[in-house]
Amino acid sequence: MTLRIILDCDPGHDDAVAILLAAGNPHVEIAAITTVGGNQTLEKVTRNALGIATLAGISAPIAAGCATPLVRDLVTSPEIHGESGLDGVTLPEPAMELDRRHAVDVMIDVVMSAEPGTITLVPTGPLTNIAMAMRKQPEIIGRVREVSLMGGGMNLGNATTAAEFNILVDPEAANLVFSAPWQVTMVGLDVTHEAQATPDVVDRFRELGTPIGNFVVDLMAFFIESNKLEQRFTAPPVHDPVALARVIDPSIVDTLNAKIVVETEGTYTTGMTLVERRPWINHVSTTHVATGLDVAKFWDLVIDSIGRL
Amino acid sequence: MTLRIILDCDPGHDDAVAILLAAGNPHVEIAAITTVGGNQTLEKVTRNALGIATLAGISAPIAAGCATPLVRDLVTSPEIHGESGLDGVTLPEPAMELDRRHAVDVMIDVVMSAEPGTITLVPTGPLTNIAMAMRKQPEIIGRVREVSLMGGGMNLGNATTAAEFNILVDPEAANLVFSAPWQVTMVGLDVTHEAQATPDVVDRFRELGTPIGNFVVDLMAFFIESNKLEQRFTAPPVHDPVALARVIDPSIVDTLNAKIVVETEGTYTTGMTLVERRPWINHVSTTHVATGLDVAKFWDLVIDSIGRL
Amino acid sequence: MTLRIILDCDPGHDDAVAILLAAGNPHVEIAAITTVGGNQTLEKVTRNALGIATLAGISAPIAAGCATPLVRDLVTSPEIHGESGLDGVTLPEPAMELDRRHAVDVMIDVVMSAEPGTITLVPTGPLTNIAMAMRKQPEIIGRVREVSLMGGGMNLGNATTAAEFNILVDPEAANLVFSAPWQVTMVGLDVTHEAQATPDVVDRFRELGTPIGNFVVDLMAFFIESNKLEQRFTAPPVHDPVALARVIDPSIVDTLNAKIVVETEGTYTTGMTLVERRPWINHVSTTHVATGLDVAKFWDLVIDSIGRL
Amino acid sequence: MTLRIILDCDPGHDDAVAILLAAGNPHVEIAAITTVGGNQTLEKVTRNALGIATLAGISAPIAAGCATPLVRDLVTSPEIHGESGLDGVTLPEPAMELDRRHAVDVMIDVVMSAEPGTITLVPTGPLTNIAMAMRKQPEIIGRVREVSLMGGGMNLGNATTAAEFNILVDPEAANLVFSAPWQVTMVGLDVTHEAQATPDVVDRFRELGTPIGNFVVDLMAFFIESNKLEQRFTAPPVHDPVALARVIDPSIVDTLNAKIVVETEGTYTTGMTLVERRPWINHVSTTHVATGLDVAKFWDLVIDSIGRL
Repeated sequence: MTLRIILDCDPGHDDAVAILLAAGNPHVEIAAITTVGGNQTLEKVTRNALGIATLAGISAPIAAGCATPLVRDLVTSPEIHGESGLDGVTLPEPAMELDRRHAVDVMIDVVMSAEPGTITLVPTGPLTNIAMAMRKQPEIIGRVREVSLMGGGMNLGNATTAAEFNILVDPEAANLVFSAPWQVTMVGLDVTHEAQATPDVVDRFRELGTPIGNFVVDLMAFFIESNKLEQRFTAPPVHDPVALARVIDPSIVDTLNAKIVVETEGTYTTGMTLVERRPWINHVSTTHVATGLDVAKFWDLVIDSIGRL
Repeated sequence: MTLRIILDCDPGHDDAVAILLAAGNPHVEIAAITTVGGNQTLEKVTRNALGIATLAGISAPIAAGCATPLVRDLVTSPEIHGESGLDGVTLPEPAMELDRRHAVDVMIDVVMSAEPGTITLVPTGPLTNIAMAMRKQPEIIGRVREVSLMGGGMNLGNATTAAEFNILVDPEAANLVFSAPWQVTMVGLDVTHEAQATPDVVDRFRELGTPIGNFVVDLMAFFIESNKLEQRFTAPPVHDPVALARVIDPSIVDTLNAKIVVETEGTYTTGMTLVERRPWINHVSTTHVATGLDVAKFWDLVIDSIGRL
Repeated sequence: MTLRIILDCDPGHDDAVAILLAAGNPHVEIAAITTVGGNQTLEKVTRNALGIATLAGISAPIAAGCATPLVRDLVTSPEIHGESGLDGVTLPEPAMELDRRHAVDVMIDVVMSAEPGTITLVPTGPLTNIAMAMRKQPEIIGRVREVSLMGGGMNLGNATTAAEFNILVDPEAANLVFSAPWQVTMVGLDVTHEAQATPDVVDRFRELGTPIGNFVVDLMAFFIESNKLEQRFTAPPVHDPVALARVIDPSIVDTLNAKIVVETEGTYTTGMTLVERRPWINHVSTTHVATGLDVAKFWDLVIDSIGRL
Repeated sequence: MTLRIILDCDPGHDDAVAILLAAGNPHVEIAAITTVGGNQTLEKVTRNALGIATLAGISAPIAAGCATPLVRDLVTSPEIHGESGLDGVTLPEPAMELDRRHAVDVMIDVVMSAEPGTITLVPTGPLTNIAMAMRKQPEIIGRVREVSLMGGGMNLGNATTAAEFNILVDPEAANLVFSAPWQVTMVGLDVTHEAQATPDVVDRFRELGTPIGNFVVDLMAFFIESNKLEQRFTAPPVHDPVALARVIDPSIVDTLNAKIVVETEGTYTTGMTLVERRPWINHVSTTHVATGLDVAKFWDLVIDSIGRL
């Protein structure tokens, strides 16, 4: 079976790996790549998306989306991703043009024109575009197969004590996405912190002996340093591809069905993804939280897929 | 000079009068009518807009917009406008089709394809569509001539002690509209409470002796009762046309240049439009607040314009 | 009839005038003077209270209260009252000792040992002490005659667009005081901005020809300059004595019975005193808002009383 | 060495066990027992404290404190503790009188008259009294040996998804206590959920063969049922004595030095105790969080101590 996905992203080093995983994996068909302001400004992440797509020979439409969160100002993450959003590598000139439609319209067009239940959304940035699409065309909620997103955490934050970056940047959008009646799986820091690009992993990319394998090695070289400096990781967590890997092979990520809400008004907790874990509370929910990662299987999938490019 | 306006509305009895004023006034060209969930659900107010447009012979595109506020659930106002949103009158079958585009796209298309500085936005409902359009295409902010909106108040609320209905329904959208660097005039309760449909005013509509004059008389018959019951007005304030009248003839409404912000998080004050009035604060602002109404001139303009239909 | 009052204050130039008014007026008996951090730190305002009491020959107990608001950090107002809290004058060495009890205990002792309904609280600073006393001994609420406080405003703020200084410093305390079932009159900026120390008023203090008259002249000399510089008043509003004058002669201040709540969580409106003014809302309330001031009568009372010292 | 403690509590079944532990342990000297509205109203928990003290022969002063949280209304927990706050047992008539002072004054008197660094506060209810005492006499902060409190949690809530009951009842008070510069150890649900009264534990109390041993058995009989019904525990967590046991024998509870803040404004997270756990954040803090419990040692200590009564 082929998985048709919309990759909504803000590349970003780990977004880049997610795009390459999507491009290389034989079971995935990229219906569209859409971009959103997050790790860097919309302009920069869109340029990055075009460059990576050129490198990987992606022919799907690529569309730029929202530059700014739903109701807040944009905060970016140059300390992790550099001034370009993808420091450490040189991208080729784009071989394709940006789709003339807005990302939100591309999403709506793809979902509304496909068979119901066939399109999977894989957001790896702030959820602004998804929320805008929900508000513009609420019928997409009933037609999407599932949303598998990188963001949040059950017991961990990174941008603040309580909040992960993607959710913190646009908590109101996240709140809309988590509370809509579609299947949402939150692939958060609890599992993505396990997806570390250790020296062994980097060696395996190098050993691919391909231009794209080397591109990933260069990406990681920068990402290793920025994560070491900023967050004291000896090997950096490569967050974003985990949300996609889970869709390709659900056995890679353990999940728990639990109610998740997003705090938007706390003094200390804005952007927190709060997971209901009291065993005595009965709740029916369409939200799921990732609780465990099969690290070996994850990297096997990523490296095998990227090795095909 | 012709005023090209987009009327973004949720009809609604007073919205209906605003639409008729636009249709009848020789200086106004309606570039589009767009609808938004507010006084009633999107479906109902859109049906009402089509009916009124049919009655008034409007040929401009009419497009439906957002059913739900930016980040909140919709609250409607059936106690003032009835179950249909326009109780008290029977509307004709629509003579035109709804534009196939979303209201937000119609707004963006009209503004981006017109000469800069030529399109005036006249919102008379919650500001959801305007905020969505700003987020989707930020360039409209620099191209719109001005925003003249019915909503808010300086010293008065109606839906709560602090907040007027249109702003309370979507305070986050309002906050975006008021804080963007375009000219915004808040035509709020301080002046619209003066625009009352007294028996004299109703008589003048009746004396027009036209079907549309009689239509307004019927509208007012219901509106008088609902306002009497709910808000103890002996004659109901006809809020929405004031925002448009001000655009047609600025001398009808006195305004003050003052910084206005919208509270979105208060326990008691959410939806409040807070106007800076401390004389010792220097501030440069693109927001303006209506402070006085020339009642006679206002009704003369409205009745004269509608009399032409 | 003699009015027994507790003056809870943070002197402060206008607090000083209120203390002198209390000391000089033949109908007032000062049951206690209590101090609270506000215009300046607790230490400074307490020293000031002792100095003024010495000057005026006050024999009532003087007790220090809370240094810090209920749940927030203290903000002071040196730009209006100077580093000492009473810049511009030199105070005598205190002739009495500070009461060894905490202000909150003095309040409770006075109210609980007096006949019910005989003690009037006149707070002219943040409401921290009053709130603490309510929480420590809730029975005072039913035994106090009334609370006549300087603070808040109906249409005006001074510390922010929405908030007056005393309320902004401790909005949670204010919220408790306004929502308790005792009679509370808010004497706010709407009336105190009328109580200006014009040159005529200052002349009348000078013409008293007494040391205390001259002391007030010196107080006003500084207050005139700081208010001119900070708030562009040509003559400074002498806020605090208005709350006491109203108790001595209710005809000096017009009031309206209206529900008042205090916002504690707004982005822009924290510290706002929100007055219900929708005519169609039925509400029974124990809160009252001052709406008008008989300026001539006010100054006559103040100058006559202080002239007796 | 003797530990001098003030037990600030709202008995409550587990508070009762904490009081008995304090009374029976040879290393503990109870300087005072103070009560606060929480599990039940102040009146009820105070009556319960007197009854337990009578049973255990406690001669320390017992004083009633705040009936109501600092700025909120009181919420009680009858579903866990019954209508009396101590359902399941019959208490003797009090053999002593309540101290005439307010709990806040008793706390201040004890701390200020003792050698600095000798008094340990052990709060097992909402933190209202402690916060009030801090505000009334800030010098206690520098004189208390440490605060070891039952409340909060690192990964768990019970009253809401995010919040434990004691903290949720008065989050503003908790915020003051956690942010003051004294040593605070949060003994929260992460460890107290391990302190379960299993059948074995209950048997050991029964085998004491003493009236007080049987009293605990009766207490647990009710507590087992209410916890089973409300929170699906097969054996109920006996939270409160853990905070005291830690003080008597620090080896019973593992702790981590980490910054803890209390959320007071969240939509979903009010009352949450947020623990900083990002390894890359340097922070110096006087707060500590309990992370592990030596269950066997805990029950040995509790049963041995209570067996001495």
